[in-house]
Formats: sequence, C-alpha cells, structure tokens
Amino acid sequence: MASVFSPLIDELISSLRCLPGVGPKSAQRMVLHLLEHNRDGAARLARSLEQAIDGVGRCQRCRTLTEQPVCGICENPRRDGSVLCVVETPADVVAIEQAGGYQGKYFVLLGRLSPIDGIGPEDIGIDQLVNQLKTGAVSEVILATNPTMEGETTAFYISERAKDLGVTVSRIAHGVPLGGELEFVDGGTLAHAFSSRKAL
Amino acid sequence: MASVFSPLIDELISSLRCLPGVGPKSAQRMVLHLLEHNRDGAARLARSLEQAIDGVGRCQRCRTLTEQPVCGICENPRRDGSVLCVVETPADVVAIEQAGGYQGKYFVLLGRLSPIDGIGPEDIGIDQLVNQLKTGAVSEVILATNPTMEGETTAFYISERAKDLGVTVSRIAHGVPLGGELEFVDGGTLAHAFSSRKAL
Repeated sequence: MASVFSPLIDELISSLRCLPGVGPKSAQRMVLHLLEHNRDGAARLARSLEQAIDGVGRCQRCRTLTEQPVCGICENPRRDGSVLCVVETPADVVAIEQAGGYQGKYFVLLGRLSPIDGIGPEDIGIDQLVNQLKTGAVSEVILATNPTMEGETTAFYISERAKDLGVTVSRIAHGVPLGGELEFVDGGTLAHAFSSRKAL
Repeated sequence: MASVFSPLIDELISSLRCLPGVGPKSAQRMVLHLLEHNRDGAARLARSLEQAIDGVGRCQRCRTLTEQPVCGICENPRRDGSVLCVVETPADVVAIEQAGGYQGKYFVLLGRLSPIDGIGPEDIGIDQLVNQLKTGAVSEVILATNPTMEGETTAFYISERAKDLGVTVSRIAHGVPLGGELEFVDGGTLAHAFSSRKAL
C-alpha cells in the first residue's frame, strides 16, 4: 500500500525509529502530535539534538558523556578520588548517584569486553584506567559492571590488571534484592545467593 | 540532587519529553543510546524535524497534514470525489486506509467541537467543508468522528449543516466489534448495540 502520508512526514516517522522503544505506530503518533500540537517542542528537540551531537564528547578523566573537558563529578573536589567505581555506561552512574551514599569517583567503560563482537580492552579505555591506577592516587577499585557473562569477564580482566599494580579491588554484591520475595527471584540469582552466602 | 549529566545532555533529555509517551526514564535511555551508538540517526532526526516543521502545512482541500498544496488522496483521480468521509485526525485517515475498501475522499477536521475548550466550528474548518458541499460535487457525507461526547456533537452539527444543503449524511456504525466477545465489551457499547439493533 502506498503511504497515506506525504514524503516529509514519512521521512520524519522513519527517522524517529532511531529512538529505542519507538515502533512504527508510536512514531506515527509522535509525528502527528508534534505537527498538530507542538511545533515549538519539535523545533527545540531538533536544536538540542544538533547541539548535543556537535558538543558532547567524553570526559578526559572518566570517559563519561559530557561536553565539558572534565565532567562535573570528576572535577568536584568534595568527591573522594581514592575510590574509583568502574561501570559500563553513564546510565549506571545515574543509578548509583540516585541511590546515594557513594562519595568516590567513576570510570565509565562505555562498553564491556566482548571478543565475539570484536570489543577488546583498548575499545573500553582500559589503558586509560590503568594509567590512572599507575599514578597511585587510587587506593580501591570497585567493579560495578553488570552480572552478565561479558560484565563478569570485564570485571575479572580489570581486577587482574589492578592487582598487578597493588590496588585493592572489590566487586559489588549480587544476590536477592532487598524487598524481593524469594519465590519471584530467578534461579541464577538464587543459586548465586547461596554460593556467595556470608558467615554470620 | 544536582543532575549527573552535563547541561547539553540535560537539555536534550528535557526536549525529548515533548514526544507523547516519553517519560524521564525513557528520555534518558534514548539520549544515552543516541549519543553512544547512533549519532547519525540523531542527526537525521534533527534534519527531518526541521524540514517537517518548515514544510508541512495543511492540504488546501481536506485539511490533512502535508507539505504539498493538495494531498495525495485529494489529487488521486481514481478516488470517488462524490463521497466525503469526515474524520477528526490524520491518524483516522490512516486507520481507514489500512482497513481498505473505502474509495471516497476525506475531510480532516484536525479537532472536534469542544465549547469548553473554546473550539468552535471555525477552528475545525466547518466553513471550508460547507463550501465544498455547496459546489454540489459531494453527494454523501460519511461522519466518522469518534464516538465521544465531542465527536457526537461534531457529527450532529455537521449533519445539520449538510442536510440544509440537501446532501445525504450517514454515520459509521458503532457497536460490538467483530471478533469481540460480549463479556469483554463495555456497558456503554453494549447498550448502544441494543438500542441500534437492526431488523433482520
């Protein structure tokens, strides 16, 4: 069937599909909403997309996404630079910051080791991390990569490199979530919770 | 809490909220995805937003959204111009076209009568519709506004105006959907289905 829409509208519907979680139906709904009710919002979105594409790069120190040379957390003098938490993505930083309590700094891999996808240590900034550890300013590395196969591999690789440099390495705890009910926890998590049990 | 993100990223997250159905969490996920993995897609989206905002107006004949003076359906000589289906939005045109079978043309109100919101006949193009009926080219108007209070009011208003001009007016049928099971149909629909029963 030929499209009901004119070419510019079709192109906009198709462009919106680059957003994760947006299928053909919701893209169409978004376009009609923007064009009928919110052209100002659409113009603002176009502007901020362009500015972010041009401006946003990586923090020189922790590799997170920012348009500044060094991100806000890295240059905050009240954060403890002797503790470094290694995460996979900027979204993980957000989650940890929102949980509150962590006062150290971060290192954002923007990825994980995945030989099958051709992602090696150089692609996730391990050299840069190792250089930071070599300065002696970091006394503990906390590994907070995801508990997936790739995340565990990444954590293991970094822990070996860090131990060689005499830096203390720890891994965040995995197990039954607080408030989680045993009957709804998946088998893998439960098995891990048993094998990682702590003496009281 | 101060934002974890730099200003350009915050502004982009906030701009994405103009899209219907996008909350703070999904906006954040979209931004991180675009900046990490799909800057080309983001640039294409910015471009098509700008082109659509500048280019897309309304069809001179049916009022639907298009960048052309007259939309594809209106200028299609194989469509029957003597039947005019009145709908509220371009999305309704898409739904009817996808169902297939309708060969007439459309008139898109881009709204519905709603005195409480200050939306009167002049805001939804009723004058333009009446002028088309006055030419005598249209023999039947099919009212396909939504079965809501405002949609029914709009349908009633248009039917009165059309009847004054001697044009046949019909309303699409409302009732139990095909394949729908009675026990899952809401009470209002069921009551309507009974009161609108047809003799066999």
